[in-house]
Amino acid sequence: MNRITRLFGIKYPIIQGGMIWCSGWELASSVSNAGGLGLIGAGSMYPEILREHIIKCKAATNNPFGVNLPLLYSDIDKHINIIIEEGIKIVFTSAGNPAKFTPLLKENGIKVVHVTSNLKFAKKSEEVGVDAVVSEGFEAGGHNGKEELTTMCLIPLVKNEISIPLISAGGIGSGSAMLAAMILGADGVQIGSRFAASKESSAHINFKNKIVEAKDNSTMLSLKKLTAVRLMKNSFYDKIVEAQNRGASVEELRELLGRARAKRGMFEGDMKEGELEIGQVSATINAVMPVKDIIDEIMLEFNKEKQKLLNLNF
Amino acid sequence: MNRITRLFGIKYPIIQGGMIWCSGWELASSVSNAGGLGLIGAGSMYPEILREHIIKCKAATNNPFGVNLPLLYSDIDKHINIIIEEGIKIVFTSAGNPAKFTPLLKENGIKVVHVTSNLKFAKKSEEVGVDAVVSEGFEAGGHNGKEELTTMCLIPLVKNEISIPLISAGGIGSGSAMLAAMILGADGVQIGSRFAASKESSAHINFKNKIVEAKDNSTMLSLKKLTAVRLMKNSFYDKIVEAQNRGASVEELRELLGRARAKRGMFEGDMKEGELEIGQVSATINAVMPVKDIIDEIMLEFNKEKQKLLNLNF
Repeated sequence: MNRITRLFGIKYPIIQGGMIWCSGWELASSVSNAGGLGLIGAGSMYPEILREHIIKCKAATNNPFGVNLPLLYSDIDKHINIIIEEGIKIVFTSAGNPAKFTPLLKENGIKVVHVTSNLKFAKKSEEVGVDAVVSEGFEAGGHNGKEELTTMCLIPLVKNEISIPLISAGGIGSGSAMLAAMILGADGVQIGSRFAASKESSAHINFKNKIVEAKDNSTMLSLKKLTAVRLMKNSFYDKIVEAQNRGASVEELRELLGRARAKRGMFEGDMKEGELEIGQVSATINAVMPVKDIIDEIMLEFNKEKQKLLNLNF
Repeated sequence: MNRITRLFGIKYPIIQGGMIWCSGWELASSVSNAGGLGLIGAGSMYPEILREHIIKCKAATNNPFGVNLPLLYSDIDKHINIIIEEGIKIVFTSAGNPAKFTPLLKENGIKVVHVTSNLKFAKKSEEVGVDAVVSEGFEAGGHNGKEELTTMCLIPLVKNEISIPLISAGGIGSGSAMLAAMILGADGVQIGSRFAASKESSAHINFKNKIVEAKDNSTMLSLKKLTAVRLMKNSFYDKIVEAQNRGASVEELRELLGRARAKRGMFEGDMKEGELEIGQVSATINAVMPVKDIIDEIMLEFNKEKQKLLNLNF
């Protein structure tokens, strides 16, 4: 047991990242049933769809689970009302200012965790009363920060400046990476890509197979003039690079991105023109596995690596 | 003892990165005297200057030390002849193809290590017979790779594909980061920024102070159209960003960079217009310390963190 397992009432300090088009009720409940903390990713859900996933998740697990909520949506108030009405007890907020909704959520008995990729917002999150912080490194998939801080550098920096529990995200898909993150100062880890490629992920099978095939040079942080996002390389990515190299404006890039690109890729399976958000760690993911097997494998490796350390004597 | 300490005949698996304008004989000999492996950075030295540093380093330490040699210089043959003539036993090559000089160096009884930032060249290095590989993550200072792989992702990938000893570079300046890198699969670590800011570094005091003042957002990987290099932000950096944003050509960027920018910044102390190569880990460096104190502190923390792990039970 540690601060993170106690905070959420879970067995292992493993949180499944809330990911658009991947983390519906099936993934979240499977992670919670396997001893981690599952999160329904509200980012790709209309309010009533979110309610449906919450109801199904409650039916599928008796263990704690939560909702990941990006704070930038126009109908965010509706999402928040549903979260409160449905009695959700854990909310991870991201992509916005933690000061805005933390007090309301806390008043409703909800544990709040804010996801950020720099030191400033980690400190701000603690100031406004969140229960824990997720610090997300440059290697993570999806939207990411301007500072480009890697997990190796970010975690010790944040650990040194906050006293609430710290969760490390970015680059973690194995027991050895989990152990490394905890040595750097994290109390738990958030895992995205590995679960995006799990059997219970709602991503399209084409996308899961693409993750399994990924190599060391398959992803890149892109669209930095809009909001930086780590993408898998494909035809769409090539068009972004071409535009960026000639100094394309924000407006041009926004038009190139268009609407619903992520859905097209990750949910509908268009591997050429879709937006495929995934982490660097995809290079180490070699099979689509059931969630329970993933978590068991990670914990087995975590404990094995810990024992091996005893032989490191200098 | 492990594969790296045995390979070099050193006490701790800590290698000081060869850095232009920072790592002359004084830094290299101090690291070797303190139980690590010091490297003279030949990158900023004319051939006869390199000879002078080797002679002084021999006089200053009885412990093993080596030379770091970027393979892209026009008078590289002169450097190599001096290394052989002076009886150097350890060479770290970087910035080029390891196939070209490894056989010659090995024939002369020299242990060869190649520095690379991707999987392909790590495997290639093993194929051509090097004794160990340095895998350098995106967070590292100075020149870096196109793949932008972070230490957290790069080390497990390389570990899985090579069987010779592996040294982790990028993001390491503390005992906990060293332990984390070794859990990820490294047999040893290469530390740059922390030693660049040491008392014995030949960098200008202005640069050392700038490293100590660095925050989480002080560095950025830049000049990707030329050779990607992690720089500390200053007036020169701002000009690069402005040029890059408008899609400046390779020629324009080369002209903007000009000649001797790194010397102007790191050695002569021009913090505004000089090129300041440093890693993200600079944000965690808080004092200019003697090399011996740095290494003692790192090893103390390494062993303390190892003990703390034993209490992590899940």
